[in-house]
Amino acid sequence: MSADHSNVDSVSPQSVTDRVRSYFDPATVGSLAVRLGELLQNHFEKLSRREGPVLNWNLPESNIAAAVESLKSERGDDVPQRFEQLVQLAFSKGHNLHHPRYVGHQVPASVPAAGLFDAVASVTNQVMAIYEMGPWATAVERALVNMWATQIGLKPGTFAGFVTNGGSLANLTALLTARNVVLGDVWESGFGAGRPQPVLVVQSDAHYCVARSAGILGIGTENIRRVPLDERRRMDVGALREILEELKQSQTPVVAVVAAACATPIGAFDPLDEIADVCEEFGVWMHVDAAHGGATAFSDQHRHLISGLERADSFICDAHKTLFVPALCAFVFYRNREHRFETFRQEASYLFDPSAPGMAEYDGGLLTIECTKHAATYGMWGITALYGKELFGDLIDHTFALTRRLYQLLSEADDFVTLHEPQCNIQVFRYQPAAVANWSAEQVGNLNRQIRRTIIESGEFYLVQTTDANGAGALRVCLMNPMTEEGDLRHLLDHIRKVGTSLINNASM
Amino acid sequence: MSADHSNVDSVSPQSVTDRVRSYFDPATVGSLAVRLGELLQNHFEKLSRREGPVLNWNLPESNIAAAVESLKSERGDDVPQRFEQLVQLAFSKGHNLHHPRYVGHQVPASVPAAGLFDAVASVTNQVMAIYEMGPWATAVERALVNMWATQIGLKPGTFAGFVTNGGSLANLTALLTARNVVLGDVWESGFGAGRPQPVLVVQSDAHYCVARSAGILGIGTENIRRVPLDERRRMDVGALREILEELKQSQTPVVAVVAAACATPIGAFDPLDEIADVCEEFGVWMHVDAAHGGATAFSDQHRHLISGLERADSFICDAHKTLFVPALCAFVFYRNREHRFETFRQEASYLFDPSAPGMAEYDGGLLTIECTKHAATYGMWGITALYGKELFGDLIDHTFALTRRLYQLLSEADDFVTLHEPQCNIQVFRYQPAAVANWSAEQVGNLNRQIRRTIIESGEFYLVQTTDANGAGALRVCLMNPMTEEGDLRHLLDHIRKVGTSLINNASM
Repeated sequence: MSADHSNVDSVSPQSVTDRVRSYFDPATVGSLAVRLGELLQNHFEKLSRREGPVLNWNLPESNIAAAVESLKSERGDDVPQRFEQLVQLAFSKGHNLHHPRYVGHQVPASVPAAGLFDAVASVTNQVMAIYEMGPWATAVERALVNMWATQIGLKPGTFAGFVTNGGSLANLTALLTARNVVLGDVWESGFGAGRPQPVLVVQSDAHYCVARSAGILGIGTENIRRVPLDERRRMDVGALREILEELKQSQTPVVAVVAAACATPIGAFDPLDEIADVCEEFGVWMHVDAAHGGATAFSDQHRHLISGLERADSFICDAHKTLFVPALCAFVFYRNREHRFETFRQEASYLFDPSAPGMAEYDGGLLTIECTKHAATYGMWGITALYGKELFGDLIDHTFALTRRLYQLLSEADDFVTLHEPQCNIQVFRYQPAAVANWSAEQVGNLNRQIRRTIIESGEFYLVQTTDANGAGALRVCLMNPMTEEGDLRHLLDHIRKVGTSLINNASM
Repeated sequence: MSADHSNVDSVSPQSVTDRVRSYFDPATVGSLAVRLGELLQNHFEKLSRREGPVLNWNLPESNIAAAVESLKSERGDDVPQRFEQLVQLAFSKGHNLHHPRYVGHQVPASVPAAGLFDAVASVTNQVMAIYEMGPWATAVERALVNMWATQIGLKPGTFAGFVTNGGSLANLTALLTARNVVLGDVWESGFGAGRPQPVLVVQSDAHYCVARSAGILGIGTENIRRVPLDERRRMDVGALREILEELKQSQTPVVAVVAAACATPIGAFDPLDEIADVCEEFGVWMHVDAAHGGATAFSDQHRHLISGLERADSFICDAHKTLFVPALCAFVFYRNREHRFETFRQEASYLFDPSAPGMAEYDGGLLTIECTKHAATYGMWGITALYGKELFGDLIDHTFALTRRLYQLLSEADDFVTLHEPQCNIQVFRYQPAAVANWSAEQVGNLNRQIRRTIIESGEFYLVQTTDANGAGALRVCLMNPMTEEGDLRHLLDHIRKVGTSLINNASM
């Protein structure tokens, strides 16, 4: 059927209709999209030459003022020109994770093609909730859930899994499921019915979202039992056994034991097989936050780190960390597929179709806190299909090896101290030259914090910080950027020396 | 500094390093991005000509098999060619929300340029959590929070707001805040301390995520009090007053009263000003799910629908609904900015910087369930800056007027029945010709469900369904697509007649 413009004009005033059409004009979309491609290429080429800062540092008030100013568009502005200005503005104000000297948080320099596949989903607004709204998004997600789960060692047909917006939401959803399975009718009747106070048993270095989950789910953050760590900051399995024994004696319900693979401070992997043995013995739900480490399943060299993960009742893995896809794309897995419908127990008649009950198995909204969910797996799907899943093993092996090299460089230097031997791509260390031999641990920690702040605001590098078990500051590098080369790491150490020496001299004056 | 390839080669075997470089090659990124632009233009042009189906319908098993097959890439495949094949595959299997005959869920045909700005964020992996990780993403979000809040009538400097992944998560977060404010130390000590059972008072047509929130937060889904509706399916304020009076008498804690602007079944807007009066009188937290209706603040013609929204203690608005940006981009607002830090009460030392405490005001992770969050507002920022915020009023006015026209067409026809007069862009109706005069309401409802299924699987149109207050099925159209023209609506009614007649004839045989 041809467009019937005369009819539409009767619906709204001419000017509104014309403007609305212009926002959706296919030729404009096309020319902007092509121009964006050119701008992205220029941007990535510039970064690959190490031009410009890593982080474009500006104070929040200054950036907010600029953002407010940028919103003041004039009608009649030249759209393609304005588009280009705005894209350049975003580049000039954003963070350059693809700069080889970005060695910061557990957020990767993502594989650029993954972002392009995500763009297919964004521009055409592919979503999920019920199968019919996102048939391909649902299929792609299911295929990737199966791929990753079997790579980890789960048996086809026995497990369930889905994707949600981030590791914190993933942990919350899995722990909600555990709560409902363990505590029975708490979903319906709530906590206020005089039931015994349950606890959550967690790795002492667990990500803060685990404690938040206890607060959200009505367990209470004070009802967390933290399992002490061994000398490598891994969960102490002997201590776990003692805690579970004590809780058993006092008949305290245990919602779950939460292990880490790995914990964020130094990237320590808990001994999952041993923890699984203890959880089985006590009949307790085992959950693993494998946000960072789950990807090692794709590496022949490193998958031993997560041995036992397949025995957990639930676990989560972030594709937007060590699978190098853009945020957010977090996977939740249940070993026993029967648990997938324990999270929630409702339906919305307008949404879940009583005339097509067979579709419920494919209605993702039954599994996730999100109702409408964007097609978060287009990026991971696209690069798996483009390069093969061996891509992920390459990226793991490459960045883990580079971290090992950094560890060697630090160990060889007499003015640096490492806080651990790296198990993955996280390395924590301090600049601690002879000049500060008499400083307290706290003073040395503060020096390192100052070094970091000076460096990140200069844009020369981006790295992060952490504290040791006693609260003293330390530098933290996470090598999630395959463009980083050994030369960059050597330059990083030299630059830290330079900034550190200057700060020490100023402090002494 | 120039790249130091010889050093990197000592880190990993040659082949891995070479492959890793190829995944990030700027020239490849650029050529793929430009090609994507061309493919998107072709795709949108095809849709604008109404070519091809709206929904590419395939059974789940078939789509999953195709997805699994697509993952089998061969190393050495021609990357640009393979990329194009995969993008075309996604187009051919996905849902075409930009087809003028998509008149379905409350998920819009998004403004394409918004998707392109989102692509800037995806390809360069812009994220937030702490300010320094997403300085521009944080600034843009803050500017948009302020713009929308003031448009709704909140006073600058008095409120707080942020963006999260979807309306369900937004409602959950706001209700978590309400719970913590109302119940005191439940965050820390949990529910198990013998406190009285609290309730949540909700609009009877509230979205299912509200009941889920009660289940998640430990209140319990059975402890929801549903306020009856008036004849227009709006919250009955007299009934609300009676319920609150009764709860006051029994000293039952009320976490919140949850109103809707609008509720999803027929798009009914609650009388917010009257509800605010009652909530103030009883000193109860008022929350409004304005996921769909919050955008009317940008329309001079329609903002009266949400009068009183600015008096709620908390409310949520989805930009990915009636602001026509791609999913997910949901806003949470607190009238009293002091409430923003009541949601959670923790910090992660490696994340939130004790050496820069002033930054906490700009660390979004303190406000959201997400830790790492993608830069979800790039799309909304970009189109606001490109076209001016008047864009949103245009889109609202245009689609609401089109819905009014549909209502007229349905009212003029003697074989259709409308279930309500539209307040926004949602219209529920039934095909009910003389031939079914003797059928029961349930039979007519089922006929309409069958009509819908036949139509959506044919790809001719995509529309949804709902049930009336008695559970009988009905057709539901949501005009979230500015490409839809009156001619499409006339064709929709004719097509329903054709499919319906055929189904009736088959049923009679």
